[in-house]
Amino acid sequence: MNTEPKHFKLDIADRIATVALDRPDRKNPLTFDSYAELRDWFRDLHYSDDVDAVVFASNGGNFSSGGDVHDIIGPLTRMSMKELLSFTRMTGDLVKAIINCGKPVIAAIDGVCVGAGAIIAMASDLRIATPEAKTAFLFTRVGLAGCDMGACAILPRIIGQGRAAELLYTGRSMSADEGHAWGFHNKLVPAEDLDRAAREMALRIAAGPNFGNMMTKTMLAQEWSMSIEQAIEAEAQAQAICMKTADFERAYNAFVAKERPVFEGN
Amino acid sequence: MNTEPKHFKLDIADRIATVALDRPDRKNPLTFDSYAELRDWFRDLHYSDDVDAVVFASNGGNFSSGGDVHDIIGPLTRMSMKELLSFTRMTGDLVKAIINCGKPVIAAIDGVCVGAGAIIAMASDLRIATPEAKTAFLFTRVGLAGCDMGACAILPRIIGQGRAAELLYTGRSMSADEGHAWGFHNKLVPAEDLDRAAREMALRIAAGPNFGNMMTKTMLAQEWSMSIEQAIEAEAQAQAICMKTADFERAYNAFVAKERPVFEGN
Amino acid sequence: MNTEPKHFKLDIADRIATVALDRPDRKNPLTFDSYAELRDWFRDLHYSDDVDAVVFASNGGNFSSGGDVHDIIGPLTRMSMKELLSFTRMTGDLVKAIINCGKPVIAAIDGVCVGAGAIIAMASDLRIATPEAKTAFLFTRVGLAGCDMGACAILPRIIGQGRAAELLYTGRSMSADEGHAWGFHNKLVPAEDLDRAAREMALRIAAGPNFGNMMTKTMLAQEWSMSIEQAIEAEAQAQAICMKTADFERAYNAFVAKERPVFEGN
Repeated sequence: MNTEPKHFKLDIADRIATVALDRPDRKNPLTFDSYAELRDWFRDLHYSDDVDAVVFASNGGNFSSGGDVHDIIGPLTRMSMKELLSFTRMTGDLVKAIINCGKPVIAAIDGVCVGAGAIIAMASDLRIATPEAKTAFLFTRVGLAGCDMGACAILPRIIGQGRAAELLYTGRSMSADEGHAWGFHNKLVPAEDLDRAAREMALRIAAGPNFGNMMTKTMLAQEWSMSIEQAIEAEAQAQAICMKTADFERAYNAFVAKERPVFEGN
Repeated sequence: MNTEPKHFKLDIADRIATVALDRPDRKNPLTFDSYAELRDWFRDLHYSDDVDAVVFASNGGNFSSGGDVHDIIGPLTRMSMKELLSFTRMTGDLVKAIINCGKPVIAAIDGVCVGAGAIIAMASDLRIATPEAKTAFLFTRVGLAGCDMGACAILPRIIGQGRAAELLYTGRSMSADEGHAWGFHNKLVPAEDLDRAAREMALRIAAGPNFGNMMTKTMLAQEWSMSIEQAIEAEAQAQAICMKTADFERAYNAFVAKERPVFEGN
Repeated sequence: MNTEPKHFKLDIADRIATVALDRPDRKNPLTFDSYAELRDWFRDLHYSDDVDAVVFASNGGNFSSGGDVHDIIGPLTRMSMKELLSFTRMTGDLVKAIINCGKPVIAAIDGVCVGAGAIIAMASDLRIATPEAKTAFLFTRVGLAGCDMGACAILPRIIGQGRAAELLYTGRSMSADEGHAWGFHNKLVPAEDLDRAAREMALRIAAGPNFGNMMTKTMLAQEWSMSIEQAIEAEAQAQAICMKTADFERAYNAFVAKERPVFEGN
């Protein structure tokens, strides 16, 4: 796994990877390069045993301003259909890679979180935000549709079909309070506590059984369009696998010994 | 497209169509005729280039009392199975036509909004209501099941499975405050502001890229039962199409020129 | 239908069955025996004409502490994969049996409601809770994944994908207030009113058209992964069936006679 990316910030400590876009003077836009590098990094993460959880952090008071108007939108207006589809598939592949990376991803959202930035937040497992977080799926404002990178499928499952429709048709900002009340943000914290709160959540989850966490993440995506009966059978199989892990035995032994279990992720 | 319907009110101005049932003395029940005419009108709307958004309005302080007891329920009790299935398919076809019409539909809900009226509100993209709005999926009260015109599939996606189950099993009224807190209503406004608020929302959305809006509406329905991976690929294609529209270029040019984009829907 | 179960409490009165786990001194854990007996009872309920609704009650101030650590988790740590899959399928079969039993199930939740207990609450149609209810999908705390008995498919549809992810990854307790705000609990009542409130809700629903209620329950599950178009056709058929019931005619006749309909469930 690439530990020295060129187009985004990466810091790995205590088996928690902290990722952030790194152009704070412009509110952290995405570029062709950072899209591709993030996609590759999250894809490789699937196979990594060195990271248990990811924090996708803000930088300089903002999460991300989305696809850069000059670096991305300008060139797109001059592309062939073949090139456009390559681009929209690359951006979609970033979402797929985040969903399939096998580790819980926690977005830590301050300030501007718009366009593809809002999509990254949406594709994360959990979201912690500051009261200043402003999240906008503003594709409509740049002349496009709201169906970008999975938004018409994923956003309704997080906040409900009616609220998602409003955000996607109007491109308006969702305030931090709305996001919290609607289940988009799991928690609001003051800006000065954001990094610590996201890190604590990541450490807390990573202190659990990480093989189990990977399976939870897998099944949350896998069962998306299954029937109830299919989902229940899929979970019977997935959980039987987890019952063969040593972490399951560790938890039982710790309980019997009246101790706290120490999980090892296998 | 029929611009002079016989069984409902229609007004088209500024490319916004305002539709309303028109029997205010009886709280605007649906009849066999208005069902069929509405279904045909929304079907034709799919091909219309004259309307960018629809307001489904209240009339005389009420949205709709649903299928008329005398005009509809009485005859239904005497029908053959073949006739009954024709009827339930016609009502379902109205929902399909609203969902497939290609234009955002905003329900403006005052007073009574029950039975098939509640279904029309549910099938709309957005809902603005007054504090007096009372929405009831009361099929159970007329001896039927809650599974009417798609309610068991659509209502849970708007307000959650548990709340939907309660409304469908009991047939009880959802208050305006509940509807707002649960994500059914996008906004509450005083009765005297309802028409204006719905019209403003319609105009605001229609001022955006209407080809993109059509694609948003299409994909919100199309991705309903797709896997996440399928949805992301479907959006990669849908958004690539939108990137070939002139509206996308207009937005970019306006941004560079530091102007507000004027979209033309192509 | 077994009316004298050995491993759980059962009381049938006024066509309402009240079920409860019966080890209040240990907060009502599930055992291999009670799992199997509950599964069989809910399966048989599908064919019963003597019960119109079910209350799954608390007992001694708690709903259920889930799979017993000594009776279940200990043995599981020593099982073969074949035996494990038999176990996880049995637990999943209990959820399937609750969902397919054809009668509305109302969970009445006081105190501890965790693990498989939380799953039973989730698999119920409606949930009434006390302010003391603490609901935790704590599989992660015993070294397992959150994907247990359908949780990764069902919980997101009740409370939203983001909140479900947090509960499943962390195993943390959802307070009664959170559960109510998020749509998990339909209603909160003081502990001393819990049994009465659940019973009143059951009686209220059972006073409706029970054939229709069965169809509502069937379709809420059946349409889970259908497309919108499929769901609307499925409901056209399901409701046409209901229009051939005598209860539909009873409701119409009562309306014409300005009386309250008395439904008979056929």
